This record gives sequence, C-alpha cells and structure tokens, in this order.
Amino acid sequence: MGALLKGEEGPAVLVNEQGRSPYVLICEHASNRLPKSLGNLGLAAADLQRHIAWDIGAESVARLLSRLMDAPLVLQRYSRLAYDCNRPPESPDAMPAVSEVTEIPGNRNLSFAERLARIQEIYRPFHQAVSEVLDTRAAQDQKSVIVSIHSFTPVYKGKTRKVELGILHDRDASFSSTLIKRFSKVDARLNEPYGPKDGVLHTMNLHAAPRGLKHAMIEIRNDLISSERGQQTWAQWLSVPLIQAAAAFSRR
Amino acid sequence: MGALLKGEEGPAVLVNEQGRSPYVLICEHASNRLPKSLGNLGLAAADLQRHIAWDIGAESVARLLSRLMDAPLVLQRYSRLAYDCNRPPESPDAMPAVSEVTEIPGNRNLSFAERLARIQEIYRPFHQAVSEVLDTRAAQDQKSVIVSIHSFTPVYKGKTRKVELGILHDRDASFSSTLIKRFSKVDARLNEPYGPKDGVLHTMNLHAAPRGLKHAMIEIRNDLISSERGQQTWAQWLSVPLIQAAAAFSRR
Repeated sequence: MGALLKGEEGPAVLVNEQGRSPYVLICEHASNRLPKSLGNLGLAAADLQRHIAWDIGAESVARLLSRLMDAPLVLQRYSRLAYDCNRPPESPDAMPAVSEVTEIPGNRNLSFAERLARIQEIYRPFHQAVSEVLDTRAAQDQKSVIVSIHSFTPVYKGKTRKVELGILHDRDASFSSTLIKRFSKVDARLNEPYGPKDGVLHTMNLHAAPRGLKHAMIEIRNDLISSERGQQTWAQWLSVPLIQAAAAFSRR
Repeated sequence: MGALLKGEEGPAVLVNEQGRSPYVLICEHASNRLPKSLGNLGLAAADLQRHIAWDIGAESVARLLSRLMDAPLVLQRYSRLAYDCNRPPESPDAMPAVSEVTEIPGNRNLSFAERLARIQEIYRPFHQAVSEVLDTRAAQDQKSVIVSIHSFTPVYKGKTRKVELGILHDRDASFSSTLIKRFSKVDARLNEPYGPKDGVLHTMNLHAAPRGLKHAMIEIRNDLISSERGQQTWAQWLSVPLIQAAAAFSRR
C-alpha cells in the first residue's frame, strides 16, 4: 500500500466470491470508514454518520442479499468522502470538496499526489476486484447480471422524496424495466430519485455496458433500512423478484 | 507472470507515457507475436502475417503519431489471436476459434484455465495500463481524448472495400463527427467498414464512455499503410487534422 492506506487493509471486500447466482452485487458506498491518514477530513463525528459519508443500511442489505441469492458481492471498505467509487477520476464529485451542502475541509485543494493516491489506492483496486470477479465468471461461461445496492436520503437539499425504491439504468434499460414490474406494493420508479444524467451510473457504464451485461442499480430510501429489521425485511423482499427476474431472463 | 507468459514480457508497451498531447493513443492490434507457450496456434507462418493476426501497419502509424503529436501510446505486445483486446472476455471473438474464414486450431475447445490465463495475462493488464495512464492524467486535470489506431483488410470474406479511412464512434459521436469533416481528400466514412453493432467499440466503451471522454477509433485500409512510406505519409497526414481538431475542441 502507498501513502494513503499505509498498511491498512485494501479497499475491496469480497464476499461469497464463488457464489453461483447470475447476480454479481456491488456496494460502492457501504462504509463510512476513513483511511487513518485522512483523519476525519475536518468533519464532526456526527457528519460521518450522515448520508454524505455512506449509503446508510446498504451494506447490510447487500450482505443479506448475497446470502439469500448465493451471489458474489464486492463492497468498498472506505467512505465515499475519501473517494466515491461510483464516479470516474475525471469527476469533481469523486473527491468532493462539498457534499450536498456540507463542506469537506480535508478535500479542499488536493494536490496532484493526494488525488493520485486516492485514485490508485481506493478507486482503481476496487474496480480491479470487480473486473476480476467478472473475468473469472466469463472464463467459465457463467452469465452475470450486475446489481448495485445503494440507499438515498429521504430529504435532499431540503426537499422530501416520496419514492421508496429506485431502479436505475443507463443505455440498456432491458433488465431494469423488466425488474420494476415485479415491485407493485411500494413506490418504485425508474431512474429516480436520480439517473444517468446525474452521473450516478458510472459503475454500470464501467462494468456492464462494455461487456454487454444486463444491469440494475437499486436505490432504497434509507429511512426504510436504517434498522436491522428494515434491512432484513427489504433484503428478503428484494430477493424474490430478483430471483424471479433472473430466471425469466435466463430462459430467453 | 503466470502459465501463459512464463517470464516473457508483459502485454502493455508504454510509449511516451508523459506526452503532453490531449490525445491518448491505443493500438490493441499492433503485433502478430504470440506468447511462446502458444506455439503458432496450429497456423502456418503465412497466416500469422495476415490481417487475422494483427492490424498491418497500425503499430508504425501509431508510433509515428505518438511522436508527431507528443501523445502517450499504449500498444499491445501480443497478437489478437492470443486475445483480442478490443473484445470483452464475454465475447466469442476474444479468443476466436475461427477468424474471418480461417480456423485457429490452438483456440479450439479452450479450458477454463486456458481462457482465464489469456484474460488475466493479456487482456486485463493491457487495459489496466490504459486505465493507469488515464488515471494519472485525470489526477493532474489533464484533458484526454482517446484515439485508437487500427487497419482493415481491403478484401473481407471475398468482398472489396472502397472506403480508405473509417472514423468509428459509439454513443458519443461528437468528436468523430467533427474530425471527419477535416478529411476531404480521401474516402472517409463514419462507422465504416464496421461500427458499434459489430462489437468493435469495446475499448472506447471501457475507457472513454465511463469517464466522459471524447473518442474516435481510426481505421485505415491496410494496403495504404503496408509500406514504410505509406505509414509515414498517413501518420503525417493524420496528425494535422487531429491537432487542429484537438485545438478546436479544447477552445469550446
């Protein structure tokens, strides 16, 4: 490890790597942990518990889904405030100086070396790990559908969001638009509360599109999965339509 | 190195890595060299000189362009018959058992381990090298336009091709459609002799689209660049519109 992680663990956490599900799960915003060398980025402890640091509840839901569906899962070990792995290095949001309306002092005026260390030690090895999981499956002709698990804040910049479940896609809508039909009991919407124009489909554009793989990015409103019970309910409840959709998909 | 390259050199050749041009050049089909462990894949020596093994003339043109424009260039050291780096691991064309109309005996019935070795030792490190060049430029806010250099055979499956220069793009046509206007003296066409539907835009979809970078894939009919003189003429002659297009582009 280089200057940033200094002997700390690498950024990619692999769970159930040999899982036999058609799904490969990704959770870029699983954690609010910061590399020790970054301190607290100048933020109060309470800020590091907020949505700006991570997707609240997403890791639990992703781990439960991985178990329920026997799916490999790649989790990011560090907070998106260190590097947002759902953004390319070219994006100002990759290492945001302001997140939502909160200034991130430790991300102001980063030097070339600081930016490069974040890219090389957090972004690149995380996506390398995802690539390797997909490469191994491709080598054995195992079909993959990429699903990422996210959560969103119920109030964003003062505005309340009603949508409970977002199913997001970019160019290839086929899987997402099939999947959403299986969610009739909640307020589920395609490409809400944000979509490709907001630059949030990076992981899918990096891993799904160039391989011709189907994809869906799942966004759950975080008040619904902030408790353990909510996480279990939602994981259970997401797994059924996902398993059905995969079966329907592989029959075609 | 693993089972495939066994102490041979790695697949990515980096040329002028620090080049200051807005262009990053890629040449996936530069070479007809095979890893020693693959022998000749069961082919006659003459077959390894044909277009099926490499893009004739492309490496020279790419190296000359790199020098003329001060652009970084990433070349693939091994033949596309070992692994075609412009195809994802999921594609049957990545390790083709038949190329054009020629059977490739050494690519028949590859085992999981053989396929994985080709992916891990040729495909993955090549694209990793491209990613690292782009990451470093992004960290220092250096704009990149990705241009790949290819050549095509004048006769394909018995059919003669008139087009001399193809400028290929996928979803983002902006750069290619600007660039082609600067080529008035040759038969230049957009997305010919093939295009995104033929699955040939993989490198661009992998590196340009997810980063929001402009791109163009340049295809030159190989009878025009089979001699050193042709290579020099075309490199010189391509560099002028490319330099102009980059200047026009960065002014916007």
